[in-house]
Amino acid sequence: MTALVSTIAEVQQAVGRARDRNLKVGLVPTMGALHAGHVSLIRAARAETGFVVVSIFVNPTQFGPGEDFSRYPRTLEVDLDICRREGVDLVFAPAAETVYPADFHTYVEVHELQDVLCGPSRPGHFRGVATVVCKLFNIVQPAVAYFGQKDFQQARIIQQLVGDLNLPLEVRICPTIREADGLALSSRNRYLNGEQRSHATVLYRSLQEVKAAVEKGERDPVALQRHLAERITATPGAILDYAEVRSAETLRTQPRLQGDVLVAVAVKFGGTRLIDNVLLQVGD
Amino acid sequence: MTALVSTIAEVQQAVGRARDRNLKVGLVPTMGALHAGHVSLIRAARAETGFVVVSIFVNPTQFGPGEDFSRYPRTLEVDLDICRREGVDLVFAPAAETVYPADFHTYVEVHELQDVLCGPSRPGHFRGVATVVCKLFNIVQPAVAYFGQKDFQQARIIQQLVGDLNLPLEVRICPTIREADGLALSSRNRYLNGEQRSHATVLYRSLQEVKAAVEKGERDPVALQRHLAERITATPGAILDYAEVRSAETLRTQPRLQGDVLVAVAVKFGGTRLIDNVLLQVGD
Repeated sequence: MTALVSTIAEVQQAVGRARDRNLKVGLVPTMGALHAGHVSLIRAARAETGFVVVSIFVNPTQFGPGEDFSRYPRTLEVDLDICRREGVDLVFAPAAETVYPADFHTYVEVHELQDVLCGPSRPGHFRGVATVVCKLFNIVQPAVAYFGQKDFQQARIIQQLVGDLNLPLEVRICPTIREADGLALSSRNRYLNGEQRSHATVLYRSLQEVKAAVEKGERDPVALQRHLAERITATPGAILDYAEVRSAETLRTQPRLQGDVLVAVAVKFGGTRLIDNVLLQVGD
Repeated sequence: MTALVSTIAEVQQAVGRARDRNLKVGLVPTMGALHAGHVSLIRAARAETGFVVVSIFVNPTQFGPGEDFSRYPRTLEVDLDICRREGVDLVFAPAAETVYPADFHTYVEVHELQDVLCGPSRPGHFRGVATVVCKLFNIVQPAVAYFGQKDFQQARIIQQLVGDLNLPLEVRICPTIREADGLALSSRNRYLNGEQRSHATVLYRSLQEVKAAVEKGERDPVALQRHLAERITATPGAILDYAEVRSAETLRTQPRLQGDVLVAVAVKFGGTRLIDNVLLQVGD
């Protein structure tokens, strides 16, 4: 039985009862428009915890001016069907005023990590993410929370804030789920027209090329970034936002690849901004 | 038996055991140099909760450049004696590196409330306070936390962040404790020389005069602020930082006093900055 609630008191009550039954609580925070990527997070939560909460909230504070807040897909009925089928215990779908009352003033900022990669293109985005996730963690008090690797910078920022603010929970980063041709699943893929959709595979293909080059011994991030940029800008309709190779831990640049490395790209097709990444373990 | 611990794991263990015994946990966050004001908070916690935690941590992030971080009084042995005498269950006195590891990046900001009164004179101060208190709340997970009204803006900011971030605890603001001549107790009073100490009573006296004027019907904040400023600037050695009459809820100015009103002053004597306030309930 999947319960649907919209108030904080109802969540706390339901989760309190689960905790009284000694069930471990898992949280999958989402903005709805659920796809197989979200389903993989729900399944990871189901496997590891005894009470799975999915939050569905299109968070206004993580959209910048001119971004797609108003047209972001809202598909609550379909989302609920998916949650029921996947055995989710509780869906929390609050109104904006429940999360952000009129006199709301508090924001969580994760400096440095929020200032790179997607940060410059989306001012305030990660502040909005960090703040709403911190709120959801305090409302649900999960033992484990699940995020997708597709939004790696977001997941890394959340890991950092959980450690820095001493939140008593674990953050799991689950593998990116892809279409057959490699395109990473995203609620924004539905904005793409047929031609954009076919060209959008350049993100995955160019990332795989970089992976192969590193496996063959390439250690120069600048050469790899140049390759990504060339492949993307040569693609019809693709406008490069960034193509970067950085430390997956600090998100800082490296003079020479070493350790856990993030290769990340952001590309616009018309008004639709897509991101993707691969993680590489690089030896000497 | 008062236990002294310095690591987060030890706190969580001790508090976990208390919670297993169904004891309500109370937290009194302090920077040490304990005086009768802190003791009143400890006694309030003792009266309301079954397991009292006092944290002692001179928080570097709430001191600005040129402030008194390095000379702030550190009196751990005396503080521990006080805690033992008052029946505190656990003292948490962490090292700076325990609270702020090298890769720390996350800050909590309470906008608007942090930008007025003491905010402009102490850039970054309330960000540091909000961040460390948020961390302490997550580490100790108290049911109730206790703060003094002397630092009213601080207490109000903490109330706001607890609500905004949905932290599951109550914030109690306890009355200011004063010397016989009205001077509010503060760890910084020990910096004052004899002459400064005797002139420092102007804070309390001028606040009481404003209170009397309001009781007699004065409703104009500007007139009251002028009176405070005149009394303070006429005092030898006193340098006025601010004298303000504002809404105690929003900390905004009011055209005419109404509802819960905060009358707050900040005054420097040499290098020592003192603050004090009164809260008034103003009818029509």
